[in-house]
Amino acid sequence: MTIRACDLGGTRLKIGVVRDGIVLAQTVEPANSKQGLAPQLPVLKAAWLRLLGELKLTWRDCAGIGVAFPSLIDADTGRVLAQYGKFADAMGLDLRAWAKDELGLPLAIENDARMALIGEWRAGAGRGVDDLVMMTIGTGLGVGVLIQGRLLRGKHGQAGVLGGHTTVRYGGRECNCGNVGCAEAEASTAFLCELAACLPEWDHSSLRRLATLNYALAVNLIHAYDPEMVILGGGIMASAEVILPAVRAHVARHAHTPWGKVRVVAGELGDRAALLAGEWLVQEQFPNTR
Amino acid sequence: MTIRACDLGGTRLKIGVVRDGIVLAQTVEPANSKQGLAPQLPVLKAAWLRLLGELKLTWRDCAGIGVAFPSLIDADTGRVLAQYGKFADAMGLDLRAWAKDELGLPLAIENDARMALIGEWRAGAGRGVDDLVMMTIGTGLGVGVLIQGRLLRGKHGQAGVLGGHTTVRYGGRECNCGNVGCAEAEASTAFLCELAACLPEWDHSSLRRLATLNYALAVNLIHAYDPEMVILGGGIMASAEVILPAVRAHVARHAHTPWGKVRVVAGELGDRAALLAGEWLVQEQFPNTR
Repeated sequence: MTIRACDLGGTRLKIGVVRDGIVLAQTVEPANSKQGLAPQLPVLKAAWLRLLGELKLTWRDCAGIGVAFPSLIDADTGRVLAQYGKFADAMGLDLRAWAKDELGLPLAIENDARMALIGEWRAGAGRGVDDLVMMTIGTGLGVGVLIQGRLLRGKHGQAGVLGGHTTVRYGGRECNCGNVGCAEAEASTAFLCELAACLPEWDHSSLRRLATLNYALAVNLIHAYDPEMVILGGGIMASAEVILPAVRAHVARHAHTPWGKVRVVAGELGDRAALLAGEWLVQEQFPNTR
Repeated sequence: MTIRACDLGGTRLKIGVVRDGIVLAQTVEPANSKQGLAPQLPVLKAAWLRLLGELKLTWRDCAGIGVAFPSLIDADTGRVLAQYGKFADAMGLDLRAWAKDELGLPLAIENDARMALIGEWRAGAGRGVDDLVMMTIGTGLGVGVLIQGRLLRGKHGQAGVLGGHTTVRYGGRECNCGNVGCAEAEASTAFLCELAACLPEWDHSSLRRLATLNYALAVNLIHAYDPEMVILGGGIMASAEVILPAVRAHVARHAHTPWGKVRVVAGELGDRAALLAGEWLVQEQFPNTR
């Protein structure tokens, strides 16, 4: 099955054409997310047309559109359920109607961290493993969860993906979400950079202490969701050779898993994970597409 | 359907006969849990016989046995998966074989905090709500989770029930489970009493500070599992009139739930919750029982 895919980040729109677990072509556009999503829809359309042209495919070759979006999503209705400053107009847009009217295709949308998990599960580090947690540590801290082969979504689309918004440091920093001492507020790269900027005496030991909050979060997620494997992804994995052994050691010491040992691995697909996930999502949401 | 039910706590064995969502009769025996479970099995058998006699029922009137147990459980096989000092021999016992040979009945077993949730869901405060988190705060801190009408268990029986073992205070106390700063280590009554004993200057403000870690855990569980309702149970609910408003205020302020408001309520069934759950569990595990 061939689909159009996009991963709408706060700073970059990643746009691709995917077939049978392979990204056939992809491109990147600036997101201008402060201006909303509506002005970017023609950008997506044009980019897909260009990519399809390069591949000598037409719109008729596509079965659907898979979208990864940085918010809470109702995958069944295709609606965006919350807004966090990026693409603030998205809650009011009917993306399915746009895709049908403008592109003649069904559109499936899901939270971006959940999409990264789906991609790694179907085509990356989590292939063949049906109990997975993925932490995407970048500007924010996204989590996706798969339990016994079922994607964890919850009634309001919040289950799993808010993993970065659990208190790991009681009495800690206030987070954008309203909670206090969240892993995202304490240890995502956005906050690390913000802290580094306001602390001239910033040093490596402080950075290391904050990084360990991510390790604490990994243990919390293992205790919460009972996975066989934790996949780490996002910008922080540029330092995978430092972080992976540290997380593994922390998990081995502190996670309570009498059944055995949780594997901790790096994601394999990088930015492509959320694009590749679109194929699974279109099939899940529109089982009658070819 | 009539079943024999028991809730095997570290200090008390709660034993009952349940039919159609009602505890027909119940009794309590000392657990002597340090001596293991095997010596208590004849105690259970005798207590059920006595209760059935009082009810003018015979073993033939019973369809099965439902057991709540303070450990990780594989509900599908009926095996105990870990031991925590209480009933240390239980991992080596075949309880299903015992029930069949000694009592001629199928036996279903599940984690006690999960059983408390099931009881409140089927017959108590959570009736009609299919997205529930229950925190049972007593000697330990047990959690049970229901998502879209499905009990959250995980591949190794750990999902949800280890909710008390997530770090809420980074750099905090070491917990029995191996983790650090767990809610259970920081805020269960066992640790509160231990702390109170070693701190002569123990005062109400310290107690209050520790109690608020339970409120932080409530928010963490809402973020992790996306419930519509949080049910609080356990010994701590003797102070429900203090705790409920405090948890509600903390959740209203700190939980990120753009869909609406999570209800925070007290469990209605107390000790009976886990007994009543046995009926649902027997039906789930042995769907052909009458």
